[in-house]
Amino acid sequence: MKAQYIGDFDEWKIGFRFSVPVTVRFSETDMYGHLNNTVNFAYFEYARIEFLKHIGLMNDWLSPDGQNIPVVADLQCDYLKQVFFDQSIDIHVKAEKIGSSSVDLHYLATDEKGEPLFTGRGTMVQISRRTGKGSPWTDGDREAFVAVPAAHQGEHR
Amino acid sequence: MKAQYIGDFDEWKIGFRFSVPVTVRFSETDMYGHLNNTVNFAYFEYARIEFLKHIGLMNDWLSPDGQNIPVVADLQCDYLKQVFFDQSIDIHVKAEKIGSSSVDLHYLATDEKGEPLFTGRGTMVQISRRTGKGSPWTDGDREAFVAVPAAHQGEHR
Amino acid sequence: MKAQYIGDFDEWKIGFRFSVPVTVRFSETDMYGHLNNTVNFAYFEYARIEFLKHIGLMNDWLSPDGQNIPVVADLQCDYLKQVFFDQSIDIHVKAEKIGSSSVDLHYLATDEKGEPLFTGRGTMVQISRRTGKGSPWTDGDREAFVAVPAAHQGEHR
Amino acid sequence: MKAQYIGDFDEWKIGFRFSVPVTVRFSETDMYGHLNNTVNFAYFEYARIEFLKHIGLMNDWLSPDGQNIPVVADLQCDYLKQVFFDQSIDIHVKAEKIGSSSVDLHYLATDEKGEPLFTGRGTMVQISRRTGKGSPWTDGDREAFVAVPAAHQGEHR
Repeated sequence: MKAQYIGDFDEWKIGFRFSVPVTVRFSETDMYGHLNNTVNFAYFEYARIEFLKHIGLMNDWLSPDGQNIPVVADLQCDYLKQVFFDQSIDIHVKAEKIGSSSVDLHYLATDEKGEPLFTGRGTMVQISRRTGKGSPWTDGDREAFVAVPAAHQGEHR
Repeated sequence: MKAQYIGDFDEWKIGFRFSVPVTVRFSETDMYGHLNNTVNFAYFEYARIEFLKHIGLMNDWLSPDGQNIPVVADLQCDYLKQVFFDQSIDIHVKAEKIGSSSVDLHYLATDEKGEPLFTGRGTMVQISRRTGKGSPWTDGDREAFVAVPAAHQGEHR
Repeated sequence: MKAQYIGDFDEWKIGFRFSVPVTVRFSETDMYGHLNNTVNFAYFEYARIEFLKHIGLMNDWLSPDGQNIPVVADLQCDYLKQVFFDQSIDIHVKAEKIGSSSVDLHYLATDEKGEPLFTGRGTMVQISRRTGKGSPWTDGDREAFVAVPAAHQGEHR
Repeated sequence: MKAQYIGDFDEWKIGFRFSVPVTVRFSETDMYGHLNNTVNFAYFEYARIEFLKHIGLMNDWLSPDGQNIPVVADLQCDYLKQVFFDQSIDIHVKAEKIGSSSVDLHYLATDEKGEPLFTGRGTMVQISRRTGKGSPWTDGDREAFVAVPAAHQGEHR
């Protein structure tokens, strides 16, 4: 059951160059015995921010004096397999499409064998703190989204 | 910025006959000062379950002896306005499209003036605990999704 | 197994004049099938803030121009009975002991029959945003903690 | 402001031989800009379970056929310093006192310089799934709590 935002899965998968590891916490499970389906979005958020730090875009957004902040416009997740307590997962992120002040980020979660567990996407918009309106990317920003240094950050625990 | 799953917004909005109230908790905010964008999905889950109880479908799924359980296949949320601590929200739910063993649920969150704050949708599938495969709706189930007694459950606090 | 901060239980219980209702959400359960034990503290936080609003102390703390903010110094919870999905609970709060710039808040969670489910306490300190040091209560604040208008806020859903 | 369960702090600190790293997620902050004070308990839970796995006691408790499960009787946390987004923390755990079917676990969270951020404790009881009553530790269990192989598990990311 492939999501609409994925064309050819293998091609789509190759495009990811960055990932972070997470391990499912007990408090993240629910009474059906697996990862509660709201937590996937917390994993996406964690991976997104690590990705943005990795490509050097996060600093300004966290600074109290920064002029812009990122705003999530939409988010979606497709659940392929059930995920369990203590499972080690890699959350991969990439910038799929870059607009004038927005970016479409895609997500892929894989298990220890590299099999897909869930996928997702969401548009993030950079807005001006002052005006609340879209604040266009610089050329440097656009370059950063594309020329991502390959990295698998950290280790599973 | 209307989501793709919404045709004519006013028409779409009229279709909701059931809602639950939630109030944004302090622990649900984040350091940007508004509702963290992962919590919207917890609200959807809460509204979905109340809706299923309301139309009489939830009992079997919670019973340890029940043969079927509901599984979320995908979820998405479109963020229209920022939501703040202590804000009173109504989460509306409806069954938009009913498949053989699945249902497409739509969500609308409104503020105290009835203005939309965020919208969403997601497919839920009924599967057999034993086989893990889709378990078709009965005629009674299908009727229940459509003939929803109108209700605004509970009050804001 | 009575907690150390409770002397005579019946006497202690009578002292509560304010409570808020909560209903256990599915996303708040864990794979052992009951309320995950970290969520009790989110309930305490919710009840604490509603209590502070009720007695008129919260406004200044949420204002961006406010001079003081409340800081939690410690928190504890004693789990008496297991709590389940969809259970209706009342969280009672009271100010047990008032220091110069701190207050010891006590919590009692009861089920629909009034039976205790869990209890708790925690010291909250008012600090100055500017200095980070304790900021003494006014006489009005101290009076507010004691002369609490009795209220059971809102209804269960 | 030392907690009552801590005698001499330096002596108490030396007793920890096991820790796990966590990094504060954005979704774990609140609108006051720091780690929401309910999340500390999720960190304790995570560290507790890793500790129990490390000393070899967790397996039986997670098995569907296991006869016993661990139940948290109480939990407390003392907040010493504010904790911020993206901060790297080590959560240390140790068994402080072992009863017939219970154990008193202590927690210490330190920052990258080894400075204490928050401390905690809580009693955990092993109960029988069948009777719901305390199920005594074996000699092997008691030995496991004491003879902990020193370990700092995993790395910060």
